[in-house]
Amino acid sequence: MLDVRPVGYVVGLLLMTLGGSMALPMLVDLLENNGHWHVFFESGMITGLVGMCLSLACSNAVRDRLSLQQTFLMTSGVWVSLPIFAALPLLIGAADLSYTDAFFEAMSGLTTTGSTVISGLDDLPRGLLLWRGLLQWFGGIGVIVMAMVFLPELRVGGMQIFKSEAFDTMGKVLPRAAEISSRISTIYVGITVACALAYGAAGMGTFDAIVHAMTTVSTGGFANYDASFGAFQGPHEYIATGFMLAAALPFVLYIQMLGGEGRSLYTNSQVRAFFGTVAVLVVLVMLSLIFTDGYGVERALREALFNIASITTGTGYASVNYMTWGGFIITIFFFCGLIGGCAGSTSCSVKIFRYQILFAAVKAQLRRIHSPHGIFRPRYDGRTVSEDVLSSVMAFFVLFIVTLGVFSVALAMTGLDLITSISGAATAVANVGPGLGPIIGPAGNFGPLPDTAKWLLAAAMLIGRLELVVVYVLFTRRFWAA
Amino acid sequence: MLDVRPVGYVVGLLLMTLGGSMALPMLVDLLENNGHWHVFFESGMITGLVGMCLSLACSNAVRDRLSLQQTFLMTSGVWVSLPIFAALPLLIGAADLSYTDAFFEAMSGLTTTGSTVISGLDDLPRGLLLWRGLLQWFGGIGVIVMAMVFLPELRVGGMQIFKSEAFDTMGKVLPRAAEISSRISTIYVGITVACALAYGAAGMGTFDAIVHAMTTVSTGGFANYDASFGAFQGPHEYIATGFMLAAALPFVLYIQMLGGEGRSLYTNSQVRAFFGTVAVLVVLVMLSLIFTDGYGVERALREALFNIASITTGTGYASVNYMTWGGFIITIFFFCGLIGGCAGSTSCSVKIFRYQILFAAVKAQLRRIHSPHGIFRPRYDGRTVSEDVLSSVMAFFVLFIVTLGVFSVALAMTGLDLITSISGAATAVANVGPGLGPIIGPAGNFGPLPDTAKWLLAAAMLIGRLELVVVYVLFTRRFWAA
Ligand SMILES: [K+]
Ligand SMILES: [K+]
Repeated sequence: MLDVRPVGYVVGLLLMTLGGSMALPMLVDLLENNGHWHVFFESGMITGLVGMCLSLACSNAVRDRLSLQQTFLMTSGVWVSLPIFAALPLLIGAADLSYTDAFFEAMSGLTTTGSTVISGLDDLPRGLLLWRGLLQWFGGIGVIVMAMVFLPELRVGGMQIFKSEAFDTMGKVLPRAAEISSRISTIYVGITVACALAYGAAGMGTFDAIVHAMTTVSTGGFANYDASFGAFQGPHEYIATGFMLAAALPFVLYIQMLGGEGRSLYTNSQVRAFFGTVAVLVVLVMLSLIFTDGYGVERALREALFNIASITTGTGYASVNYMTWGGFIITIFFFCGLIGGCAGSTSCSVKIFRYQILFAAVKAQLRRIHSPHGIFRPRYDGRTVSEDVLSSVMAFFVLFIVTLGVFSVALAMTGLDLITSISGAATAVANVGPGLGPIIGPAGNFGPLPDTAKWLLAAAMLIGRLELVVVYVLFTRRFWAA
Repeated sequence: MLDVRPVGYVVGLLLMTLGGSMALPMLVDLLENNGHWHVFFESGMITGLVGMCLSLACSNAVRDRLSLQQTFLMTSGVWVSLPIFAALPLLIGAADLSYTDAFFEAMSGLTTTGSTVISGLDDLPRGLLLWRGLLQWFGGIGVIVMAMVFLPELRVGGMQIFKSEAFDTMGKVLPRAAEISSRISTIYVGITVACALAYGAAGMGTFDAIVHAMTTVSTGGFANYDASFGAFQGPHEYIATGFMLAAALPFVLYIQMLGGEGRSLYTNSQVRAFFGTVAVLVVLVMLSLIFTDGYGVERALREALFNIASITTGTGYASVNYMTWGGFIITIFFFCGLIGGCAGSTSCSVKIFRYQILFAAVKAQLRRIHSPHGIFRPRYDGRTVSEDVLSSVMAFFVLFIVTLGVFSVALAMTGLDLITSISGAATAVANVGPGLGPIIGPAGNFGPLPDTAKWLLAAAMLIGRLELVVVYVLFTRRFWAA
């Protein structure tokens, strides 16, 4: 029988932390004197108390180690429980959302998806805007820790390939999770502060600079305005591009850089492939903007850089309504979202290293066809890819495509059209944010969708953020039998 | 140095056969006395003479065996050369097509895709209509022979899994290719005749019955009318459904049935999975037609059966303009085209057995996650899937998805919108026929597309029909070096 109490204990502790963090937006609303502070006080009390009761009730079963089953259950459990309570300020606050909408927004925040159901962001109390930013910021660091500590251990989606990397740097004696978390947190906070300062220097107000820095570095993409990032043109876009790209790199490289191994950022094959992909896409979009839409060179470069970086890293800011840019750019943007950034970053989707491994496997297979008796193993970053990693990556890719198909059909069943269904499923599973088409495109939002569609999308965000396998494992008979 | 003369010899012989077969539509036009016969006479003479010269020029290098390289080159060479000449009657005949259009139509015919650039089919000379039907019919038998004889030998896309099956039935002593071809031809002709008789019995005219039987059994989908199969309602649709499904089953099973192993059709796991998939899709579409579009039960069942069978088998007949049926059905149809029929049939796309193997691999991977030290191999049809087969299937799937993406972006580059680009790429690579949207949807045709888009689509049809790998192998350096 699976003992779920250790899971409850961890979830309880995190709920207490979540409740405590509601003090920040409460403080902001108190300073703003807008009469909205009590929303966070009430939500914080409820969340904190539930968390305390849960962790107390489960504290009698806490052990040093978690079993594999418990680790899986905990990973999913955390990402399901937190949005339930993170939704409270959105439910009872000035956003005036139904619970469906509030939960959607909270899930979209914590998974760093950034799809929003709220229109009228410009008039929202600052506490709520900060809360949305905080959710993404917490989600971002949670994702990195999960990708560096838990996923390699759980051997999910080929992430075990990065096991040794993390080890090499840390030394096996350190209590790994805590150590990694604290090092990563330092870097994460550092990049966020740098981003906020840069936004401030470019002329963004202090509050906007802080919130947008949070949603940039987490590649979350919530903005404080209905126009998304369209409120900030010019230099802001270059700054955002730089920090979105930085947030999509493997954070383990930053640790290595701080440890004096500065070259690793330039020699890492995933990073090189990532920048190569982005460069090609930027050039294509830029040329199309110049020759089809008649943009000047600087504007074309800026919009191409910003929007390609935004979609490829899965941030999902929009600087303009790119639905008017025509079929070529829209089609590129659709497939961009299915690429993703690097593993071990805040970005989501299939990710560069998986494509590298898949292409290496295809190449090996083509060679095997010529020389049936030769032995060809796919190689990644100079090393042979083990069969376990390869089949993990393959399983991930198949599940990703099938999940996309199933959610598209399910969304269409709620009455949505083809583009809204397919792009909605893709943007949710890949945690990008905006979809395509008139409803959920960059100029719209997810508010008008039927409730069923919102629950489906929230589920898709969760499944995508947990690299699919973490969720699907829970639906196998064997999981509960063992 | 690769000796291409044996390839030239085979291509030459097939061109002579193609030229000779133009006598059939010539005869029809002579009987119709429409003055159009000379088109086929001229085309036939050109094709036959070129074929004769080519085979004579290459005949000095004919050997008993082809090398692996030569076999690959021959397979691609045949499917590139034949459309070049098969296009002649469409170029110089009454269809009044440009060479781009004529080549597109011929490639669409021989690959059994069935996308058409011609509007005004109803007024075309019967010779040309028969020619379109014949192209698909030849293409269909070509595909089965390729799938049963060449692809398992070339170890393409996991087809090697069916190697033993063909052997078991034939006995190793028979000259395999010729023997399989002749047995398959008998069955193929038999099914076509049965289909034509059934259409005739239901009231279709003799000429229409013959041509539509050819395009049904080849899962090609060319029709004699602009309204596609919409010209034939009621019982015709049930008959077409039955024969489309029959043509999407593995033809080796028919050989086994004639050999007295009748049960194999009911026990074959691929066939069961295929019918299971079709049944679920039919029920979904039927319920949607009843409850959303207010259709009566019989009509809903009929249209659901016909259209799901048409798209899943890759035939691509349309009985109505299903773009009016709303997002749910359209989304289902989009993904239907990516499923496909069974291996060793005339149908194309990913195919059922590959999904079975992919899902088995995913299942094995999920088990491996629970029990890191257990050994789990994916199983298919009661046997363990070898690593070679598994990685072939994976390579196929990755190439399929990436090809889809690349062709979508390339089509969008020619100025097409998102739905036309994506559904056009999908319908071409999967050899289905109609796309989605107002231009290439069931009510439109491919005529209005820019020439570049037509060449891209023709290339995609070829790549899809040759199971991708056969073409991509030619683009590796190693292929030409060896
Ligand atoms: K995002
Ligand atoms: K077809």
